Amino acid sequence: MPDKPRLAFIGTGIMGAPMTRNLLKAGYSVCVHNRTTAKARPLADDGATLAESPAAAAADADVVMSCVTDSPDVRRVYLDEDSGVISTVRAGSLAIDFSTIAPAVAREVADALADKDVAMLDAPVSGGDVGAQNGTLSIMVGGSPEAFQRARPLFEALGKTITHCGPSGAGQQTKLCNQVLCALNLAGVCEAIVLACKAGLDPEPMLAATSGGAAGSWSLSNLGPKIAAGDFEPGFMIDLIQKDLRLVFESSREAGASLPATALVHQLFAAAQADGLGRKGTQALYRVLADLAKLD
Amino acid sequence: MPDKPRLAFIGTGIMGAPMTRNLLKAGYSVCVHNRTTAKARPLADDGATLAESPAAAAADADVVMSCVTDSPDVRRVYLDEDSGVISTVRAGSLAIDFSTIAPAVAREVADALADKDVAMLDAPVSGGDVGAQNGTLSIMVGGSPEAFQRARPLFEALGKTITHCGPSGAGQQTKLCNQVLCALNLAGVCEAIVLACKAGLDPEPMLAATSGGAAGSWSLSNLGPKIAAGDFEPGFMIDLIQKDLRLVFESSREAGASLPATALVHQLFAAAQADGLGRKGTQALYRVLADLAKLD
Repeated sequence: MPDKPRLAFIGTGIMGAPMTRNLLKAGYSVCVHNRTTAKARPLADDGATLAESPAAAAADADVVMSCVTDSPDVRRVYLDEDSGVISTVRAGSLAIDFSTIAPAVAREVADALADKDVAMLDAPVSGGDVGAQNGTLSIMVGGSPEAFQRARPLFEALGKTITHCGPSGAGQQTKLCNQVLCALNLAGVCEAIVLACKAGLDPEPMLAATSGGAAGSWSLSNLGPKIAAGDFEPGFMIDLIQKDLRLVFESSREAGASLPATALVHQLFAAAQADGLGRKGTQALYRVLADLAKLD
Repeated sequence: MPDKPRLAFIGTGIMGAPMTRNLLKAGYSVCVHNRTTAKARPLADDGATLAESPAAAAADADVVMSCVTDSPDVRRVYLDEDSGVISTVRAGSLAIDFSTIAPAVAREVADALADKDVAMLDAPVSGGDVGAQNGTLSIMVGGSPEAFQRARPLFEALGKTITHCGPSGAGQQTKLCNQVLCALNLAGVCEAIVLACKAGLDPEPMLAATSGGAAGSWSLSNLGPKIAAGDFEPGFMIDLIQKDLRLVFESSREAGASLPATALVHQLFAAAQADGLGRKGTQALYRVLADLAKLD
């Protein structure tokens, strides 16, 4: 048994690559796999080893980690009979999935791994590519308290706010709540700026006056100035928050919840997608509301 | 001319009384008037003098201040021919209104006072009774830069974030943007907690996990824990945010803006009022959304 656990990291995209770099910097050995191999290759220069499949990456790992896009990707990475983690993973090892997926799928994959004596944590993150690079992610964790304690040193290499939210699926459920909050905070920022501009008010002192008080939010402080400056580059893309809001509504349907305000913002984001803004930052929601008000 | 300007303060309610106390503490002499005289009387013990009418309070003042509820109250306090400030106010003095009212009414009253050679600032505040007590209000100011500079020492005795937002009415317009932000941030908090509770997630770790990141807001940090604890006491009452949102929609109609998400939340607050929750804190919006989801 080595001093530090040997790691596998599957999915080295915009989030996974900088997370892997932070683990390498913290002195871990990491074997990486990415569906598009070319994207994983630069990590070899930083000391990672490359694997051809999730199964190959997991074969020698004490902890298997993943960060992919959606529920079917997580199912494939872990459960595929030929190439999935489940075909090689060693009893007693630990799995941590950082993707944002349906809580029900997180529980399904965790149950399948439990049959192989592998504990699994769902650990979706918030904080974007900048948070991944700087190791300042918020990490919302579901799973057993024992697995959470075991994973804590790894989380501390990746993030700042690390919260155990409950049993398997609770991390995903918390992330969905997080996205409800982000969507509505942003809608407020967009409508406030539309109202300001249409009423002839300079949005910049408005943002300065409101950011520090009871109206304040991360969205207001970080996305408000981008909107005022006409900067709609991502950050976090509309197509991705729409994927997350789809998961919110799958979850709310199963749970029997009604989320009217989130539903409205989901539809306004759909209008942004219809207008070709899906790959812009979420703050491009402003363009839809500005168009409604015939603002330039 | 005394070292410090002599002040009048009209409207010594839940906001005006602690604001007056902070001015007295800062060494100003203050003559107060309140429509219900009994409410002003305790301020006499703190050193204020009492006046029978706005006109009487303003007669000897260098700066006339007010903090009342709505546009008609401000019109009456300043413009009533018999008892209003305008009947006694001295040329060269300054007027500052801290109420939240229609930007158009703020401009109308400022124009009427300008004819008497009195400069007026609209200076609505955010931060609630606690901010008024602690002198930590956010103050959003509209009016001339000269009048703003003249009022600055007074603002500094009352608040922390003091912003000159533009010409007459711009303070009110900014406050309306502030209320749009508060309404939508709160809707997000309520729907996130409903989703958490219905999905069987403990809301407290959810609030802890989301408050420090991209989902964070003043509403989440301050009202989220109250909702989780079942505390719906005001704070800021639903009836008052509904008054402010009415002003938002008057303004957006005049300006030609469309605010669909704010409109939805305004209607959800109306459901709360219909359910007898108008005098509860704004966080009682949660009760409407919890009822929709048949949560206890």
